[in-house]
Amino acid sequence: MAADASAHRVVIVGGGFAGMQCGLALRRSPAQVTLLDKRNFHLFQPLLYQVATGALSPANIAAPLRGIFKRQANARTLLDDVTGFDLPAKEVETAKGGRVPFDSLVFAAGSIPHYFGKDAEWEPHAPGLKTVEDATLLRQRILSAFERAERDPDANNRRKYLTFVVVGGGPTGVEMAGAIRELAKDTLRKDFRSIDPAAARVILVENSDHVLEAFPEKSQARALKALEALGVEPMLGGRVTGITANQVTVSRRGATETIDTETVVWAAGVKATPLGKLLADATGVTVDRGGRMPVNPDCSVGGHPNVFVIGDAMSLNGPDGKPLPGVAPVAMQQGRYVADVIDRRLRGKSPLPPFRYHDKGSMATIGRSRAVAVTNGFQLSGWLAWMAWLFIHIMYLARFENRLLVLMQWFWNYVTRNRAARLITHPKPD
Amino acid sequence: MAADASAHRVVIVGGGFAGMQCGLALRRSPAQVTLLDKRNFHLFQPLLYQVATGALSPANIAAPLRGIFKRQANARTLLDDVTGFDLPAKEVETAKGGRVPFDSLVFAAGSIPHYFGKDAEWEPHAPGLKTVEDATLLRQRILSAFERAERDPDANNRRKYLTFVVVGGGPTGVEMAGAIRELAKDTLRKDFRSIDPAAARVILVENSDHVLEAFPEKSQARALKALEALGVEPMLGGRVTGITANQVTVSRRGATETIDTETVVWAAGVKATPLGKLLADATGVTVDRGGRMPVNPDCSVGGHPNVFVIGDAMSLNGPDGKPLPGVAPVAMQQGRYVADVIDRRLRGKSPLPPFRYHDKGSMATIGRSRAVAVTNGFQLSGWLAWMAWLFIHIMYLARFENRLLVLMQWFWNYVTRNRAARLITHPKPD
Repeated sequence: MAADASAHRVVIVGGGFAGMQCGLALRRSPAQVTLLDKRNFHLFQPLLYQVATGALSPANIAAPLRGIFKRQANARTLLDDVTGFDLPAKEVETAKGGRVPFDSLVFAAGSIPHYFGKDAEWEPHAPGLKTVEDATLLRQRILSAFERAERDPDANNRRKYLTFVVVGGGPTGVEMAGAIRELAKDTLRKDFRSIDPAAARVILVENSDHVLEAFPEKSQARALKALEALGVEPMLGGRVTGITANQVTVSRRGATETIDTETVVWAAGVKATPLGKLLADATGVTVDRGGRMPVNPDCSVGGHPNVFVIGDAMSLNGPDGKPLPGVAPVAMQQGRYVADVIDRRLRGKSPLPPFRYHDKGSMATIGRSRAVAVTNGFQLSGWLAWMAWLFIHIMYLARFENRLLVLMQWFWNYVTRNRAARLITHPKPD
Repeated sequence: MAADASAHRVVIVGGGFAGMQCGLALRRSPAQVTLLDKRNFHLFQPLLYQVATGALSPANIAAPLRGIFKRQANARTLLDDVTGFDLPAKEVETAKGGRVPFDSLVFAAGSIPHYFGKDAEWEPHAPGLKTVEDATLLRQRILSAFERAERDPDANNRRKYLTFVVVGGGPTGVEMAGAIRELAKDTLRKDFRSIDPAAARVILVENSDHVLEAFPEKSQARALKALEALGVEPMLGGRVTGITANQVTVSRRGATETIDTETVVWAAGVKATPLGKLLADATGVTVDRGGRMPVNPDCSVGGHPNVFVIGDAMSLNGPDGKPLPGVAPVAMQQGRYVADVIDRRLRGKSPLPPFRYHDKGSMATIGRSRAVAVTNGFQLSGWLAWMAWLFIHIMYLARFENRLLVLMQWFWNYVTRNRAARLITHPKPD
């Protein structure tokens, strides 16, 4: 469909799982789609931990948005920062390209790490895993820690450098902790002369009494066992109370423990981007503690049937009364749902029933050849779950670029314990 | 050979072509090798232009030094900045790890861009192509220029954004100019809605009257023709007299021309790293205008038979009285030569004859399927030269990592005009 000036204008803010799927799903719609993003690529965030540990390059898990929408004539992409929303004028305000008019607005700006009120103090010492730059920064810090240990004759310093703390026992934390241990004990095994990288400690601090909270008990136990087999030290029931440049303080069972470390990964929580607050104010709704906007059953906001919020930026309860989780499948399904809502309106069809999340299952990988997966109450673990995990991720990535060979290579590296992308880039004085 | 505290200590400064080859060639020598580098990887610099134009990821052309020397028990790698040389004490001074003692010192710290006295003014606007960060910065600038043009309704601004200037008509400049044109006219062809990327101008400014100065006349003419066929605008006999944030001034045939552009690539010259000056002062020799240290016929310096300078850091004339070119083959051959010199001394063998560069030929590629190559006076061009270029580069890269599949994928992308790594990372406000 060619560009049509009189067509219904859909402006999508954010090219993550939610926004991208929404844009793609409007392919055959009599709408003119504008996708606004501050980055020029869609990022497969769940694999950022593999970039942070040198197994993949950023380009392996990122697809240029312009490439994705290249052949979709009714869509255009704008690289810009959104600065505000003028709902009465039906315009999105941007930093560089001025105002972008819309008939329907889809807000899908995602989430950022949430340090529970300690953002300013903790964030510099404990990066999250949400952007390519987060991942390359963590890669730099993790690899530099081994280099510093190799140089330093002082045993205490070495111990500190070779201690890594991952905060948060969800899928990201579990996968990250497992990957650091594998980097240390497999990939780097013969790389150093003065230190034994395999002696590196990886401590996984988790507030609750189990890892992978969203999983059934049996999977949690299996994941914990797999982590311990890898040499990860889980610190369950531990609440982080302080993070400085060289120490993490954990409150646990009434006592306070300190861990000397210079490398901390934050995987304990996310909140909606601050941009959501601007839209919430414009629509008159109140965001929750995580900055998420409550939405109506059709993902529209407040009294604005043409303004939708989807993905990590929204808050909506499922039929069980529990809030939908901030995961990629929810975001993708909402993206397609809202595209359908808009398309049916344009075609004068009857409205859709409320959004309903179809949970096809969850999976988490704990190092090479270990994983847990849940689907329809059916639990899988070990090699089979890991193969399923690998297959699903390769298929997803291969959709966006004709790069099956690269991904096969990744598969091969992953199996052979090679991490060819272990580069320290943008180094800072240390 | 296991580490031996009493062994002859060889300290190599720099893990580029020269230093890495020297270290590898000492594999069977009764020496203890320490390779000092400020980066943790060996970088295949000749392909940086492919990173800058989104065809390859940094990790595709970089190999972790620790991985390269992993199984060489008589070698260790230190990630550190060299800050000085204490020749009487036979020690190299480093920023973080203190003093590193040596019996033989091999200096191979390479080169940096040379702006002929205008470093401070020109460098911020016209990055060279020597580091991974140079390449990702240029990638960011080149891709952002198209994004800015897409956003800007002003025709003059668009013209400025879509004008790219490459300074220097050697292999790097020629390859870079060709790659930008291909990015514009092939890869990005259908990516934009408001601009025609194929309209992008790429101006190649070269001081002399021909591109590829080191090549025979016939190859030069063929390269020029290939560049023009791609749509590159060569500006021969042009001397750059000014570079600002949005303009390049060129003096040419008695007139001054100004080019409105915000994206400039510097490929006009290199000089030895400033570190060479410190070693020159310590050895009592005087560096040339390019900061290079004159060396003795066996690559040792002044009256120091145990101090060697190789690669881009040295200056040595060939049998024809002309200085050896600053290219990878010279660096690699010198690395192996000096390793042999040291090894023969340690084994009490007769000394080697002076270093002699065996020129196996030169090649440059001008976009997909066009190249020129010279070998033993034999000139090759077109498809055959390009296949030779591709084959040699793939073989070189594949040696360091088991990544033939990735390189086959690169080959495939290159042929199909895909550039999957066109990511704008570390974006700055623009």
